[in-house]
Amino acid sequence: MEEMMERLLQKTVEVITTDELIDKIKKKKKLRVKLGIDPSAPDIHLGHAVVLRKLREFQDAGHTGVLIVGNFTAMIGDPTGRSRTRPQLTREQVEENIKRYREQVFKILDPDRTEFLYNNDWLGEMKAKDVIELASKYTVARMLERDDFSKRLKEQKPLHIHEILYPLFQGYDSVYVKSDVELGGTDQKFNFMVARALQVEFGLEPQVVITMHLLEGTDGVRKMSKSYGNHIGISDPPFEMFGKIMSIPDSLITKYFYLCTDYSEDKVKEIEERMKKGENPRDWKFTLAQEIVKIYHGEEAAKSAGEEFNRVFKNKEVPREMPVYLLKEEKRLMEIVVEAGLLSSRSEYRRKLKEGAIYLDSERVKDINFALKPPCDKVVKVGKKKFLKVVSER
Amino acid sequence: MEEMMERLLQKTVEVITTDELIDKIKKKKKLRVKLGIDPSAPDIHLGHAVVLRKLREFQDAGHTGVLIVGNFTAMIGDPTGRSRTRPQLTREQVEENIKRYREQVFKILDPDRTEFLYNNDWLGEMKAKDVIELASKYTVARMLERDDFSKRLKEQKPLHIHEILYPLFQGYDSVYVKSDVELGGTDQKFNFMVARALQVEFGLEPQVVITMHLLEGTDGVRKMSKSYGNHIGISDPPFEMFGKIMSIPDSLITKYFYLCTDYSEDKVKEIEERMKKGENPRDWKFTLAQEIVKIYHGEEAAKSAGEEFNRVFKNKEVPREMPVYLLKEEKRLMEIVVEAGLLSSRSEYRRKLKEGAIYLDSERVKDINFALKPPCDKVVKVGKKKFLKVVSER
Repeated sequence: MEEMMERLLQKTVEVITTDELIDKIKKKKKLRVKLGIDPSAPDIHLGHAVVLRKLREFQDAGHTGVLIVGNFTAMIGDPTGRSRTRPQLTREQVEENIKRYREQVFKILDPDRTEFLYNNDWLGEMKAKDVIELASKYTVARMLERDDFSKRLKEQKPLHIHEILYPLFQGYDSVYVKSDVELGGTDQKFNFMVARALQVEFGLEPQVVITMHLLEGTDGVRKMSKSYGNHIGISDPPFEMFGKIMSIPDSLITKYFYLCTDYSEDKVKEIEERMKKGENPRDWKFTLAQEIVKIYHGEEAAKSAGEEFNRVFKNKEVPREMPVYLLKEEKRLMEIVVEAGLLSSRSEYRRKLKEGAIYLDSERVKDINFALKPPCDKVVKVGKKKFLKVVSER
Repeated sequence: MEEMMERLLQKTVEVITTDELIDKIKKKKKLRVKLGIDPSAPDIHLGHAVVLRKLREFQDAGHTGVLIVGNFTAMIGDPTGRSRTRPQLTREQVEENIKRYREQVFKILDPDRTEFLYNNDWLGEMKAKDVIELASKYTVARMLERDDFSKRLKEQKPLHIHEILYPLFQGYDSVYVKSDVELGGTDQKFNFMVARALQVEFGLEPQVVITMHLLEGTDGVRKMSKSYGNHIGISDPPFEMFGKIMSIPDSLITKYFYLCTDYSEDKVKEIEERMKKGENPRDWKFTLAQEIVKIYHGEEAAKSAGEEFNRVFKNKEVPREMPVYLLKEEKRLMEIVVEAGLLSSRSEYRRKLKEGAIYLDSERVKDINFALKPPCDKVVKVGKKKFLKVVSER
């Protein structure tokens, strides 16, 4: 029991409360561990994996992962507030996305201990009077305690009323599925606590809230997210995954070891100490890349990716904080830059090109159709700050 | 046109905006004038009549009164916030109340130009996603501008989330019925302005908002309301109505002339001047009582009630600020006091009796079953401040 608890609690930020968790495990044996899924983000990256791997630990201890596809709540949009209600994804789009999600998620989760539920199945059936009933369970003041809500109110930025309904709907999921535990990033704590309170209002035992660290992406600054282009997908091919990990800033090496590998806290501390004493971060990053690729593609693939990486970058200084693009066939630079996420669209690329802001190895690019083909090892520069290393395997 | 506009705008507090109203009348001839009805308050009193009489003026000018029975919104409860959602009235209870309401309302309105609609017919059909769509049209900040909301937040009194949905639902009624004008008391202005904004959000021309003064009840302090026991019902029998009007404080005489009779503003000002110059307010109050009774019961009844009143109170100083109870048959004092609204329940009466706080003509009442019977002319005193004159016709 003690050993299992230690495993379940390791690397968490907050557990509310540990005593309740121990009680529940003693009483029920098999807990329902809720995890919310955004159906508009079907690709799983290392940031998602932090929470998913924790859920796997619960599954290994005999508990059930209750994955709730937020096909209803996705419509509300949380917490941007920039736009009005988003168009609801069609059932087909959701199915397509969830199919992709499932293909990836079982690299981490145990399919035999996983339930997939869609919250539109119950929230979509609610009538206005049910919404009123739900909204009567929580006060405006408590809802406005959420940091981003109070900040937007204070700064007189629009906060629409449907946005403060979001935590209620998400919380009602916990009531409906009778979750014992909810898992997520630290940024979800407020919503999870609302869910806890709602469960009590509806006469249930409150769920235990467990939060995990957020993982910064390859830019080393922002939370990992596909929309920032700083993500490392768990289904990225081995060499690409390897290269992306090699591009993270040195300052993130220990955090990645801590959150993305099975290394113990002690071992991670040791690595930190050794780098402080002068060991080359590049070598530890190499080990990190191998460890992570091993988790998602196996030992063989990890080994090959490492060898490949050394071959490609042989005798060259690795551009530490530069993303790497692996070129497999002839491709227009425009496509490469947009695919790699340096620019968000072709039209933006065209504008930058006109401004004379696209360079290849310090030479200005002028032709909109300019293309690269293997073999290749070039540095693309967009504006003053964005770099991309484009390499081919041969 | 000018004369008609003058009639429609007379005695209003605010018209938002007069230009829009003129435009609408020119364009559409027949406007839809919305009036919300609380199905839990089926008895119409002079306070309600202020607004209903204004609506009648619109009907006389050819417009349609669209009466919306709030059988959905009544469930939310606005704006007390003291309790959670109230149990929704059953369809039967609503029908019963509205039957009573109809029996009374056509003393004022023109039945041929009146529509009765029930907002549960459309709000009851809304799904959660429609509520979200609706809630996305308005910001939290603007909603919290409502005085009572901001006050409760500031004073850290509970304001539940469903309560800030209320103005949205009420506003959606205006969208649904495509109202051109909404009429109500000044305390409704905020909600009406939300409705106006929502109509624009839904692509409609905004309704004109017209607010009327609130009328204090017989206590001279609080807004007239059955729950305060300070109301004068338009269906009260002539003598009772007459007596209640005679019991209002002198300070309200001109306001009652202004809001409850057809007297012009000039005429009301003249009365005010004449009282200032020393004319007896009691005589003007007598005229006021006759005018109002005439409106609801006809000239004959008004005359008889006045004569009756003089007979009963002949040669006696009328207790100016004391309500009058007309005793028709033998009745326990407990029933009389509760019926007259001096105390809210029999158990409260029992407590007061035990405390020795019930007096009849300065003599303490001790017997719980003490009763009065006609002929009667007594003053009941409850505690130090509450008085009631109990009189019989013979």
